[in-house]
Amino acid sequence: MSGKIANLARAYRVTDGSTFRLKRHSPADTGPFGAADDEIAESMLSGSIQQMADLQEKLYAQDHWSVLLIFQAMDAAGKDSTIKQVMSGINPQGCQVFSFKAPSEEELDHDFLWRTMRCLPERGRIGIFNRSYYEETLIVRVHPEILARQRLPKGLVGKRIWSERFEDIAAFERYLSRNGVKIIKFFLNVSKGEQKRRFLARLDEPSKNWKFSAGDLKERARWGEYMTAYEATIRHTARPHAPWYVVPADNKWFTRLVVASAIVDTLNDMKLSFPRLTEEQREQLKLARSELTGEKR
Amino acid sequence: MSGKIANLARAYRVTDGSTFRLKRHSPADTGPFGAADDEIAESMLSGSIQQMADLQEKLYAQDHWSVLLIFQAMDAAGKDSTIKQVMSGINPQGCQVFSFKAPSEEELDHDFLWRTMRCLPERGRIGIFNRSYYEETLIVRVHPEILARQRLPKGLVGKRIWSERFEDIAAFERYLSRNGVKIIKFFLNVSKGEQKRRFLARLDEPSKNWKFSAGDLKERARWGEYMTAYEATIRHTARPHAPWYVVPADNKWFTRLVVASAIVDTLNDMKLSFPRLTEEQREQLKLARSELTGEKR
Repeated sequence: MSGKIANLARAYRVTDGSTFRLKRHSPADTGPFGAADDEIAESMLSGSIQQMADLQEKLYAQDHWSVLLIFQAMDAAGKDSTIKQVMSGINPQGCQVFSFKAPSEEELDHDFLWRTMRCLPERGRIGIFNRSYYEETLIVRVHPEILARQRLPKGLVGKRIWSERFEDIAAFERYLSRNGVKIIKFFLNVSKGEQKRRFLARLDEPSKNWKFSAGDLKERARWGEYMTAYEATIRHTARPHAPWYVVPADNKWFTRLVVASAIVDTLNDMKLSFPRLTEEQREQLKLARSELTGEKR
Repeated sequence: MSGKIANLARAYRVTDGSTFRLKRHSPADTGPFGAADDEIAESMLSGSIQQMADLQEKLYAQDHWSVLLIFQAMDAAGKDSTIKQVMSGINPQGCQVFSFKAPSEEELDHDFLWRTMRCLPERGRIGIFNRSYYEETLIVRVHPEILARQRLPKGLVGKRIWSERFEDIAAFERYLSRNGVKIIKFFLNVSKGEQKRRFLARLDEPSKNWKFSAGDLKERARWGEYMTAYEATIRHTARPHAPWYVVPADNKWFTRLVVASAIVDTLNDMKLSFPRLTEEQREQLKLARSELTGEKR
């Protein structure tokens, strides 16, 4: 195992989905690490978080780009804990998390991108979507009754609905990337067996009980359909400007490290720097300086 | 100096403004600490942050209350850095920061609370306002031309405008507190001399240049008017359910410790706990357990 995590995430990045097969990605993969390397991995994680915090300051100061991190996964894959562990330590002033749950009546009264569009990160910030518009081609695809609740005009819901949805999402992300939003999408790839273990832990530990919802088992029962939906989604929406990372999620310490590494890589590639002053601004600072030092008292 | 920071913040809390005088509060105060105690203070700060992180998890799990932290101060008093240092380490999923700058045309087309009301924290979350509706009785009071931009109907702007504003803000905060929003307000009390030192540092250090704006000196020139406006604001809007903390801000390490301590005190007083299950929910968990363990494969 090399001491570097540079490029660790690259192995899990999908920028062209045309040949993507989910089966080729093992949820238990730990890359160059052995099962006993979790402590090394954790100390590397804190290094990455520090790097991320430094880069985020530049992102904020420069105020040109924004970064959008999208997290999608089955229940108990570790979305919440990954967001917590990887993003705690980042200045909350430059970072916003939005969780998208079942849509409200008001949200259903709009197109499916509407509610997320209102939450996009401002320039200079990192926005995190815990679930996103991708729910549309995942849970909505698995449960057509949810699509019916959108009350779309009848003629608009046809056989091609899902390929149209993919096309719309891809075009939306292309538009965002052209407007200064760096998009990275994470699919936390947990196995069905590991989900079972984690559900049982939620049932057995009183302090975790509140995280369990009876509905979770209903979705688990449709595991195969979900995996098909995830594969199709990644296949059709992975792009160089909006890559998917298919992150092995059976070992939380590895999940976190891959996610942190992907974010650091992305921020590094953006060549961020503190803003440079124009000649005019430099003059203004000089004036301000002499005004301040010349103050009475 | 005692080893405890419990109640450290209480000395700076104002719950009844009727006798409040800003002059009695020294920006250079460091409470029980000496100038050489900054390292001890910093290690205490990390303890407080850990406590805060634990309490915040309960707040989020319980999902009944929300917490609103309001920061107001003169430029360079340390709002941004305090938010960064105190709130980094909190799960960003349970914490949102909104900065309010000069209002947009759309915002000016509404009442002065409107833009902040849309950003109030959801139940279970900590919301942070970096500046707030209090700008109305501070910068707007010092600059009546900003009030004019609100285009209020003429008859509504009279001699009593500021006492009406205080009344409206106090009533709004009373309403929020009745609806489960815990409000704490921080005035970071920096001295004019320390502001000068910090401005000069921003002018002299290239990596800080971007933080300086030529307009900052214009506001500094009206220091006295601002102090009068802060005193009146605190005097009229400090309440037991919405206290002001007048935080000494000439030493950043002390500012941070007082702010963290005030937040921890408030969360502690809320008697937060993980949600307890009802009998029915417990039954559901049992059912889920046997369904999971009985799965084929």
